[in-house]
Amino acid sequence: MSCVMNTILLETEDFFATDRVRLLGRRLRHVREIHQAAEGDELRVGVLNGKLGCGRVERIDQHSLELSVRLDLIPPPPLPLHLILALPRPKVLNRSIAAAASMGIKQIDLINAWRVEKAYWDSPKLSEQNLREQLIFGLEQSGDTILPTIRLQRLFVPFVREELPKEISGRLALLAHPTAEREAPRCLTGPVVLAIGPEGGFIEREANTFQEIGFEAISLGRRILRVETALAFLIGRLF
Amino acid sequence: MSCVMNTILLETEDFFATDRVRLLGRRLRHVREIHQAAEGDELRVGVLNGKLGCGRVERIDQHSLELSVRLDLIPPPPLPLHLILALPRPKVLNRSIAAAASMGIKQIDLINAWRVEKAYWDSPKLSEQNLREQLIFGLEQSGDTILPTIRLQRLFVPFVREELPKEISGRLALLAHPTAEREAPRCLTGPVVLAIGPEGGFIEREANTFQEIGFEAISLGRRILRVETALAFLIGRLF
Repeated sequence: MSCVMNTILLETEDFFATDRVRLLGRRLRHVREIHQAAEGDELRVGVLNGKLGCGRVERIDQHSLELSVRLDLIPPPPLPLHLILALPRPKVLNRSIAAAASMGIKQIDLINAWRVEKAYWDSPKLSEQNLREQLIFGLEQSGDTILPTIRLQRLFVPFVREELPKEISGRLALLAHPTAEREAPRCLTGPVVLAIGPEGGFIEREANTFQEIGFEAISLGRRILRVETALAFLIGRLF
Repeated sequence: MSCVMNTILLETEDFFATDRVRLLGRRLRHVREIHQAAEGDELRVGVLNGKLGCGRVERIDQHSLELSVRLDLIPPPPLPLHLILALPRPKVLNRSIAAAASMGIKQIDLINAWRVEKAYWDSPKLSEQNLREQLIFGLEQSGDTILPTIRLQRLFVPFVREELPKEISGRLALLAHPTAEREAPRCLTGPVVLAIGPEGGFIEREANTFQEIGFEAISLGRRILRVETALAFLIGRLF
């Protein structure tokens, strides 16, 4: 059993000694069912918002898992990208949030748009608890510990006109827009703010609002990709 | 109602006149529920392995949909990438296949590997019908018509040692491998064969087999991404 599986994220309340944790619930089940770990095995662990390292299984049964942990590795650097994402369908939301976290995005604004159905804002998937869980899945998948921030922006115009201009100051601001003529730039090293629209795209008036405050519209080519595919494709392209 | 929604793929048996189709089942439901189309609306359509265009709703009710179609646009060019993918978990398979098709991949080999659980090969999701359906979802999403080919390769060594050398002749062959030192190349224009391992990666012996026949191992960085995220990330990066 080597460190090829997901990282297990630990929180301060899991520690009952400086280097010992006890885990129950989801993480216990995961280690029993997916890692199929036994005493003596080493697992990849990390402390939420802290260091990464290895955890040695000291005791495991159906009730709890005890690990002795050694934490000596700093998490991978964050991706210098602030994501502005039109709220996706609930079914797509979880995957998109986890994927964003797995790629190192640390700042996400979920925003309203003309083609975002109103009912999406009432989805239980928007609860703080669910969003946090999806972020943690993404961190565990990728081997990171730094929890991203998600903000919900239900009012398009006040957010884009009044808040976003401060956010994009000194950064490259890009709007993924199907009808744009310019191709996505490559090999960026500085900070980027990237806006991605809903299924069907931002309407022209919304795209204009972004462009009026300084966003450049970029195209992904002739194909229309799902939001989580477009996001990973663009990150691979931009950085 | 404009052409921002998914493309509806038509097959020859849907035509009852040169420019008229009648649709039932999934596509009828999709047009009623998602497009919410009424008589006179125009929908984006394409003929499987043929041209794209617009379809005008002539009649729609709960039993069937009739469109008059005008086909005048050639599909987007294929991505010059042959994908060799270790068979993912059934839950991940559908998404990965649809995502691959949406990005324009036309040749996919699903292969066995040490870390592919044997049970995955018995999944009903590997049926020809399901795989075709996922490919069509990907084409409909992205606005393409050319159906990709999927082959199942249950025997790793004979496939990699005997078949792959012919496939990679004259192409750049890349192996996504977490421990590789070389970064993924950029801005490729020629044909590529890309191999992506299972969760946890190919084992060293498998990675060596790929490298012995001419694959170059490339890294995606310190983060470990899910297969469908890694695939989109790499395509954004490579081309």
